[in-house]
Amino acid sequence: MKLLTYSLDGSTRVGAWLDSASIVELSAVADAFPGSMLGLIREWDSWRDRLPEMIEGAPRRALTDVRIEAPIANPPRDILCVGKNYADHVNEVKALGYGSIPSHPIVFSKATTTINRPDGLVEISADPTETTDYEGELAVIIGKGGRYIDERDAREHVFGYTLINDVSSRDLQGRHVQWFLGKSIDGYAPMGPVIVTEESAGKIRDWRLQTRVNGELRQDASIGQMIFSVPEIIATISRYVTLMAGDIIATGTPSGVGAGHEPPVYLKPGDEVVVSCEAIGELRSRFV
Amino acid sequence: MKLLTYSLDGSTRVGAWLDSASIVELSAVADAFPGSMLGLIREWDSWRDRLPEMIEGAPRRALTDVRIEAPIANPPRDILCVGKNYADHVNEVKALGYGSIPSHPIVFSKATTTINRPDGLVEISADPTETTDYEGELAVIIGKGGRYIDERDAREHVFGYTLINDVSSRDLQGRHVQWFLGKSIDGYAPMGPVIVTEESAGKIRDWRLQTRVNGELRQDASIGQMIFSVPEIIATISRYVTLMAGDIIATGTPSGVGAGHEPPVYLKPGDEVVVSCEAIGELRSRFV
Repeated sequence: MKLLTYSLDGSTRVGAWLDSASIVELSAVADAFPGSMLGLIREWDSWRDRLPEMIEGAPRRALTDVRIEAPIANPPRDILCVGKNYADHVNEVKALGYGSIPSHPIVFSKATTTINRPDGLVEISADPTETTDYEGELAVIIGKGGRYIDERDAREHVFGYTLINDVSSRDLQGRHVQWFLGKSIDGYAPMGPVIVTEESAGKIRDWRLQTRVNGELRQDASIGQMIFSVPEIIATISRYVTLMAGDIIATGTPSGVGAGHEPPVYLKPGDEVVVSCEAIGELRSRFV
Repeated sequence: MKLLTYSLDGSTRVGAWLDSASIVELSAVADAFPGSMLGLIREWDSWRDRLPEMIEGAPRRALTDVRIEAPIANPPRDILCVGKNYADHVNEVKALGYGSIPSHPIVFSKATTTINRPDGLVEISADPTETTDYEGELAVIIGKGGRYIDERDAREHVFGYTLINDVSSRDLQGRHVQWFLGKSIDGYAPMGPVIVTEESAGKIRDWRLQTRVNGELRQDASIGQMIFSVPEIIATISRYVTLMAGDIIATGTPSGVGAGHEPPVYLKPGDEVVVSCEAIGELRSRFV
């Protein structure tokens, strides 16, 4: 099942993705249906079994009639991010002083205000260092929160998966020592287009993640190449931090970022970046 | 004016601090008075001028009748923190590989779930590395949000000031490369006891910040010793991140942390840490 947040006539709602031409308006079927994805995640136990039947009976709406929004526009707190989680990417940024293969997950955060919608604009003019770079990533949405989550139980705590572009200003990352500010410029986290729910996700390690810049393939990796798997990440973070419903975890980017090129190739106004994964869809952004 | 969050008979409310023996129950005066500090911050323009008169007429309550809570228990997102913002502290941790005086503010975050109340317990058993350390700090609470805030206007965006103990696991900070996880163990941010509102704060650069461990003075500095002042911090962060009402910014710790001792002295079960500032009060925590 693929769920999405969309806006229509000035209001924002939660729907289901039907095909590349149409969505299903879930809010039209049940009065009490949550008005936001965060609300649905929190009430998931009450809705998950009813949803397939609701989708059958709900009115369709042409995709062209609506605007797809970020699946979660107002998360309960900052986006959790894992750094250097693909070996090839670690190697490509080694020359930039970012060290070697981590023996423990590197975790940092991005401010809530970075969240941007699919097909949105990313204002790189806000980066005075002109070193803005893309990072296509798989994002995990936490469903049931908790602490001390065992690796073997981790996927029971996942609501679903989406795509995120962890847009980063490389020089600001270095200038401010910790990565937070260079990762947290307003709009620097395009997210979406849909959330694939955990029960329909299957073997995510077989998923292929790709990033194209102006149509050119720059990143192409399998989720199975991650150094720390999704269950390992959830277990590590929740050893210290109680995870909450609606928490977003960006799981790291494969090789092929602009900073890994020689010389580095940063994004410039007019560039279009598409992060894609067959199971989820395409996350397209224009940089201005 | 000093405002606080307290609980009584199972409900949490916002009050005003009268003296070391009593508080004022603001919720008893006006029906529509916000039930949380975050609510009050968001509606501040409607209440600020009425508050002095409300305080006059409101019922008193003995401090012993209530439990003081963290002034903001559910902030809109993670706590923003500035690292290495006092020169003496930079020098004491230099040997640990934390480098030199920063030329730009170092900004990182602490998860929302770190927030702990005054007189609360901090469970250091959650730190497997047994390197938990205190960091007494002044915290700024943002009132009016905004982006591209000029240094000269910065204090117009401040709601008030409180104390925070940015409790940190030193080895986890290093193990996970970025500081987030080592700073984000549940309960690792005792905060309070009150918020001194901006209009009554006066010259904060003259305030003295002290930390005592089991009664022994460990940190003692003037806010004026900060490398980056509160207005500089607000201007820098808001250059990239739109600040929001209720954002909490911890402004860095002076010298005297346990990691700066030779050999390092970390917190152990039974220790009591008190962060204090005459203008704000005492923030006491017990480590268990």
